[in-house]
Amino acid sequence: MSNLETPTNIRSFTDQPLAERFLATRQMSIEIASPLSSEDMQLQSIPDASPIKWHLAHTTWAFETFILKPLLPDYSEFHPHFEYLFNSYYNAIGKQFGRAKRGLLSRPTIDEVNQYRQYVDSAMVNWLTQLEPLSKSSDEHIQACDLLLLLINHEQQHQELMLTDIQHAFSINPLNPTYRATATIIHQSSSLNWQSFDPGLVQIGHQNEPFYFDNEGPAHQFFIAPFKIATRLISCGEYLDFIEQGGYQEASYWLSEAWKKINENNLIAPLYWKKQQGKWFQFTLAGLQPLDLNAPVSSINYFEATAYANSVGKRLPSEQEWEIAARAVKLHGHFYQQQALSPSASHDNSRKNELQQMFGELWQWTSSSYNAYPGFKPREGAIGEYNGKFMVNQYVLRGGSFASQHGHLRASYRNFFYPDAAWQYTGIRLAESL
Amino acid sequence: MSNLETPTNIRSFTDQPLAERFLATRQMSIEIASPLSSEDMQLQSIPDASPIKWHLAHTTWAFETFILKPLLPDYSEFHPHFEYLFNSYYNAIGKQFGRAKRGLLSRPTIDEVNQYRQYVDSAMVNWLTQLEPLSKSSDEHIQACDLLLLLINHEQQHQELMLTDIQHAFSINPLNPTYRATATIIHQSSSLNWQSFDPGLVQIGHQNEPFYFDNEGPAHQFFIAPFKIATRLISCGEYLDFIEQGGYQEASYWLSEAWKKINENNLIAPLYWKKQQGKWFQFTLAGLQPLDLNAPVSSINYFEATAYANSVGKRLPSEQEWEIAARAVKLHGHFYQQQALSPSASHDNSRKNELQQMFGELWQWTSSSYNAYPGFKPREGAIGEYNGKFMVNQYVLRGGSFASQHGHLRASYRNFFYPDAAWQYTGIRLAESL
Amino acid sequence: MSNLETPTNIRSFTDQPLAERFLATRQMSIEIASPLSSEDMQLQSIPDASPIKWHLAHTTWAFETFILKPLLPDYSEFHPHFEYLFNSYYNAIGKQFGRAKRGLLSRPTIDEVNQYRQYVDSAMVNWLTQLEPLSKSSDEHIQACDLLLLLINHEQQHQELMLTDIQHAFSINPLNPTYRATATIIHQSSSLNWQSFDPGLVQIGHQNEPFYFDNEGPAHQFFIAPFKIATRLISCGEYLDFIEQGGYQEASYWLSEAWKKINENNLIAPLYWKKQQGKWFQFTLAGLQPLDLNAPVSSINYFEATAYANSVGKRLPSEQEWEIAARAVKLHGHFYQQQALSPSASHDNSRKNELQQMFGELWQWTSSSYNAYPGFKPREGAIGEYNGKFMVNQYVLRGGSFASQHGHLRASYRNFFYPDAAWQYTGIRLAESL
Amino acid sequence: MSNLETPTNIRSFTDQPLAERFLATRQMSIEIASPLSSEDMQLQSIPDASPIKWHLAHTTWAFETFILKPLLPDYSEFHPHFEYLFNSYYNAIGKQFGRAKRGLLSRPTIDEVNQYRQYVDSAMVNWLTQLEPLSKSSDEHIQACDLLLLLINHEQQHQELMLTDIQHAFSINPLNPTYRATATIIHQSSSLNWQSFDPGLVQIGHQNEPFYFDNEGPAHQFFIAPFKIATRLISCGEYLDFIEQGGYQEASYWLSEAWKKINENNLIAPLYWKKQQGKWFQFTLAGLQPLDLNAPVSSINYFEATAYANSVGKRLPSEQEWEIAARAVKLHGHFYQQQALSPSASHDNSRKNELQQMFGELWQWTSSSYNAYPGFKPREGAIGEYNGKFMVNQYVLRGGSFASQHGHLRASYRNFFYPDAAWQYTGIRLAESL
Repeated sequence: MSNLETPTNIRSFTDQPLAERFLATRQMSIEIASPLSSEDMQLQSIPDASPIKWHLAHTTWAFETFILKPLLPDYSEFHPHFEYLFNSYYNAIGKQFGRAKRGLLSRPTIDEVNQYRQYVDSAMVNWLTQLEPLSKSSDEHIQACDLLLLLINHEQQHQELMLTDIQHAFSINPLNPTYRATATIIHQSSSLNWQSFDPGLVQIGHQNEPFYFDNEGPAHQFFIAPFKIATRLISCGEYLDFIEQGGYQEASYWLSEAWKKINENNLIAPLYWKKQQGKWFQFTLAGLQPLDLNAPVSSINYFEATAYANSVGKRLPSEQEWEIAARAVKLHGHFYQQQALSPSASHDNSRKNELQQMFGELWQWTSSSYNAYPGFKPREGAIGEYNGKFMVNQYVLRGGSFASQHGHLRASYRNFFYPDAAWQYTGIRLAESL
Repeated sequence: MSNLETPTNIRSFTDQPLAERFLATRQMSIEIASPLSSEDMQLQSIPDASPIKWHLAHTTWAFETFILKPLLPDYSEFHPHFEYLFNSYYNAIGKQFGRAKRGLLSRPTIDEVNQYRQYVDSAMVNWLTQLEPLSKSSDEHIQACDLLLLLINHEQQHQELMLTDIQHAFSINPLNPTYRATATIIHQSSSLNWQSFDPGLVQIGHQNEPFYFDNEGPAHQFFIAPFKIATRLISCGEYLDFIEQGGYQEASYWLSEAWKKINENNLIAPLYWKKQQGKWFQFTLAGLQPLDLNAPVSSINYFEATAYANSVGKRLPSEQEWEIAARAVKLHGHFYQQQALSPSASHDNSRKNELQQMFGELWQWTSSSYNAYPGFKPREGAIGEYNGKFMVNQYVLRGGSFASQHGHLRASYRNFFYPDAAWQYTGIRLAESL
Repeated sequence: MSNLETPTNIRSFTDQPLAERFLATRQMSIEIASPLSSEDMQLQSIPDASPIKWHLAHTTWAFETFILKPLLPDYSEFHPHFEYLFNSYYNAIGKQFGRAKRGLLSRPTIDEVNQYRQYVDSAMVNWLTQLEPLSKSSDEHIQACDLLLLLINHEQQHQELMLTDIQHAFSINPLNPTYRATATIIHQSSSLNWQSFDPGLVQIGHQNEPFYFDNEGPAHQFFIAPFKIATRLISCGEYLDFIEQGGYQEASYWLSEAWKKINENNLIAPLYWKKQQGKWFQFTLAGLQPLDLNAPVSSINYFEATAYANSVGKRLPSEQEWEIAARAVKLHGHFYQQQALSPSASHDNSRKNELQQMFGELWQWTSSSYNAYPGFKPREGAIGEYNGKFMVNQYVLRGGSFASQHGHLRASYRNFFYPDAAWQYTGIRLAESL
Repeated sequence: MSNLETPTNIRSFTDQPLAERFLATRQMSIEIASPLSSEDMQLQSIPDASPIKWHLAHTTWAFETFILKPLLPDYSEFHPHFEYLFNSYYNAIGKQFGRAKRGLLSRPTIDEVNQYRQYVDSAMVNWLTQLEPLSKSSDEHIQACDLLLLLINHEQQHQELMLTDIQHAFSINPLNPTYRATATIIHQSSSLNWQSFDPGLVQIGHQNEPFYFDNEGPAHQFFIAPFKIATRLISCGEYLDFIEQGGYQEASYWLSEAWKKINENNLIAPLYWKKQQGKWFQFTLAGLQPLDLNAPVSSINYFEATAYANSVGKRLPSEQEWEIAARAVKLHGHFYQQQALSPSASHDNSRKNELQQMFGELWQWTSSSYNAYPGFKPREGAIGEYNGKFMVNQYVLRGGSFASQHGHLRASYRNFFYPDAAWQYTGIRLAESL
């Protein structure tokens, strides 16, 4: 689907045994951090982003807190203060060190954090060894595997955040530091076409996916109105037209909140765009690069995405529309099998292969507020705070980015951010009602 | 449906000719303002609320701006600065005086605003006289009536805001001023039962309603999962239990954003609740009153509503669930006619008359983010800014309150406020998935 | 000295009996408020300014709190909530209603405040009648007169604030309301000369003044270095030159804090200056008026005063320098008698009469931080909070303005405001070390 | 005078040749940084404090900017971006990287900063070699030496800030990191006595000091009223009494601004005091230590110092009083020579040796706002921004702390900070008027 060169090949593992997958995930985090100095790893440039060192410790804390402490009676914690320092937001576990001050933790050092990782990894491997002999169908085994898989996916989510967060931190520095030498290779934009979808009753939410987060379910029926969706993402060139035709000065394109922010902050372009001596550049993981007009426009927020859509008389797709379209796309080597719940909603996949850039290039803003699916229940216990308590004022993104772990790409995955957040790898796909 | 004594009888007009309805609406605003001094009418206690005098001028401005100026070639505006002063948020009309500073306009005086009202009313009546002879089926006539009806409903919306805004302004004053002598008579709470609804494909949005705002359409099909909904609103007594059992100290009930606000502001009860010498009181239009444990809890925000629902293991209804339930209720003397789109969604109205307090008591928070219905298009021109540009980060409320104009009560009406807004007449109805 | 037309003649009383002086002062406040509607009297445009109605009530509260309640055993307070509502900042009296919310008190109405004034005035006159028969040399009589005089002066201070505060409130309104029809007549600027003063040991602080605030004493010796001082205030024309030559863009003129504020707020001119269609105007008590280039520049803050001084290679006078110069000026019909403490400091008054605009035109910023004189002790009791607790981060102004009560003009009077405050009648006089 | 163990012996050099002194100063900065990791050196916990790495680069930048670039025609700058990155506040040099974001500069790395230091040191030594042969009385030689001495003192000032800033950054970390193993040894408090001083005309400002900053002059005559001053600093035990007797709850002790801050932030003790399980601790360079009741109370702000003084019926000394007292103290092995300007001000030094803790223990807040001495002129050019533009809203501290370079201790030195700043090594000495 995507031939992007990711910073490291964070897309490799799919059918491995759990222990192997655990270790590979743990190793991947280390690889992502490897180009960075200990000073880089401490940077926190906005409260919503975290230092790389903190990511490395927090993901470790998650295994310690949700597996080792509750399940291993003899486990003794690595450090008495780490529960407080590396708890992100789980109130049921206890109080947390202030989110906005994570960049002020020069201690523990990165060496200590690495020791913490090794200590926890070693205990985890011991536990996994004990786990294997259990009957694979025993409740205990299933529950443990389920939890382990969740925490592996949790660390993989943080792997993407490590890249978005370090890019933002580097963007503040006038020296324009680079995370890696070469820029991400992104599909060149082909001509923008439209793919139509018939109305009908469809199934939304996780179906046959081997893993999913609680917020992807329950799967449920949804009546979809007829719509068409763009075959590719909006390019930098198209977005530049919007800017040059006065898009940031035309109130009618913008939501009321957005217009206020734009004017208060004198915004004239996306977060990472900089104009120098009449030429546009974009700050990337490879530092400041000339703007590639054919690449999809990236790191824009929901407000910008809706304004662009309004300016061309279109709109963003709902998350259900996006998901229906996505299930018509070949992913991981095979087509999604669309379940036809009603005749009118049946889809001929062979006709749909025009759709490009659905998965693994840029997260795509949808028009859908992040909310619970009908019948949604968070998981029991502290881990229930993972997703549910954020279901207000955020908007759903779909599709995954070049920085997402390959195994994460699936039609039901729901990412979510505030509508003014721009530092993720986010782009624009248009839609229209029929 | 509701035997509330409204401040003035703002529910009277339904089948009047337009001119009569126009004048009655104009008169109603004056009546609502009549208990207030010119000093009261100038108060603005929060940026989101406006002074009564401003409401009186702005609703006048709307008729002048959207009807008199564009449609009457000879009309000359009342005052050259009023376009700027009383434009609320229509960027297509021009710049606006700062929203948060409306309370600083001692000029124009209330006398001048009343002259403004009379000047515009007189011009409007002239125009309406000319309008009548037009063929009722002519495009011009239909468009004009449509616009007039919208602006009448606009002023009626402001009539409710006049009450919520003056109540909030008075609540700041330690003298506890009263707007009127007697408190609103609210249904005493009966026992809380549940009404179940079958799954099925239903119609959502305006149907046969004689008037609706653009955001109530287009009507569209929606697949509804099975659910049950509470037969009445949550009472003050039930909410007091929540408080006394530590609800404001238990993180797991609250959305993450809400928990932050509660702790930053040391919140322990709803906006208008005050504890004095061990007894709870509530600030109302009739001043500070002992808390009525049987009355529905009022003026709570979305965060409180969701926290309460979580604390009892329930949730808020979606706006679609609320609408389906509402169509099973007798309103304006007859049952809504529920269109059965699929057999499973057919409803036997006679079974549904248990539902109480659906209309005209308190607005009911739904779990639905305020967003466009499929195929929604704002109206053309400046008036298109009425609703569409606010479709982000707000939540839908349904049902109308005791302060809503009677003619506004309908199943498709979508009110919307930010999740931390509490100064409206808002309450809690619970729901649950089946 | 000054032939200004004050809004009302607030300068009349000097040698009256106390009762007469009390009543005249009370009457003056009513006269100052008389051009205003009850809506105008409620405006509060910045937290540091207060509504006129609040001034009228607070000055009344002061007589009630510091005289009637403690000294009249049978006095019963006018209203149980007024102690809380109209206490400005006296913690020893009790808690205070929030300063920034004074504009939200539509109740008490202006009629009730006027009743409050009459009630307190009546009780005060009774008390004064009892006071007169007391031996004039008795301790009780002296203390009572002393306190009364302080509170009369307190109300007179508020009379000036009533004018500055209503001007600021009116300046927010795009209708440019006027407080009175004709602009203040200010001395036309003559050519700017310099008056030199010899070094020497001098007396600073109140000397023979019939009244003074505690912060004007104790009188103390001060060694003054040789200096010269400008014979008049800086004119609008001179200040306009500063603006047009890039003064607001030249960092080297500005204190570091000031430079930050200027850039954060994009300031380019004084508070009340507005450029319209290429011409400069100034908002005044008489509304928006063309800028009078010969009038002294007014309503500028300490930051602007120091920047202007730096731009011409001068500085502001210290408060001691200003006071020494002021004692060489004819005031109230006679020259100040300068006490020669050391021969070198003796001054020949006849030579000094070049100095103009020292008193009663505009308050003049000095370079002196507002601090205690050596040996300063605040008054005993709650009234000790009058001045002392504000002795940090404010700067001393001298000379009085056209809005100051005539009897207040004296060489030792120390006014004080924060360096970013511009809404007072403040101007610039330059000085230089010799 | 003081037998404190400073972190490193930063007090050694007095009569060295300039080149030697330059190199010793440069070496001292490296030594102060030596216990810290590169992660520690990047911390910035408040906008007013800077990362250690930034201090190391900025002090280097000062030599490059004010000596190498203007005086060495062939000098080529180390890095084109460093002028922008390490300019603190010199607008005449150019724009500056945002002060509050210095902690976000992971690049340049500490290795690069060290290379920068070596590059500049090497160029400086070359320049100094050329400088030596110049006639010592030549203007060029004198001006160069003067500038060099200023910049050496500048770096020494930053050496103290390095300690205060890292202490503050460490204090945020719940792990309570230590900068060094052993706490500062501070004089145990003896009984508090009072030393009286006669009134008289005295000389204030630098006199025979071998070095002084521009703000210490011009020396000028000052008439001092009779006063007495405490013989030692206030101890932690005395300050604890103040706390335990309700000092932070008694409004009458506090300046109005201070009272507001205390209540807004719920302050109950000095910045670094923490109560754990009923016992008081203090965060220090040696981590969290039990509170030493006999040690002088440290890291308190001006507001706390004045409140404490008020609570015991005393006041802070003016900076002139402090200076007069300090000149009666033996420093650097000999008594200051007090110049008797008038007979009444003559002082018998032998009687004054009761005064303790005047120099090199804790900076002592004075009651004096930081302002220009009569006749003060900043230095010419960009370096003139060193001191003068900060002369507003700050208060003068005197005496130096245990972290001050030994050679800096002198009677005329004026340090200055905002009245709410507490993170410096600041204490309380009382005074009283006679």
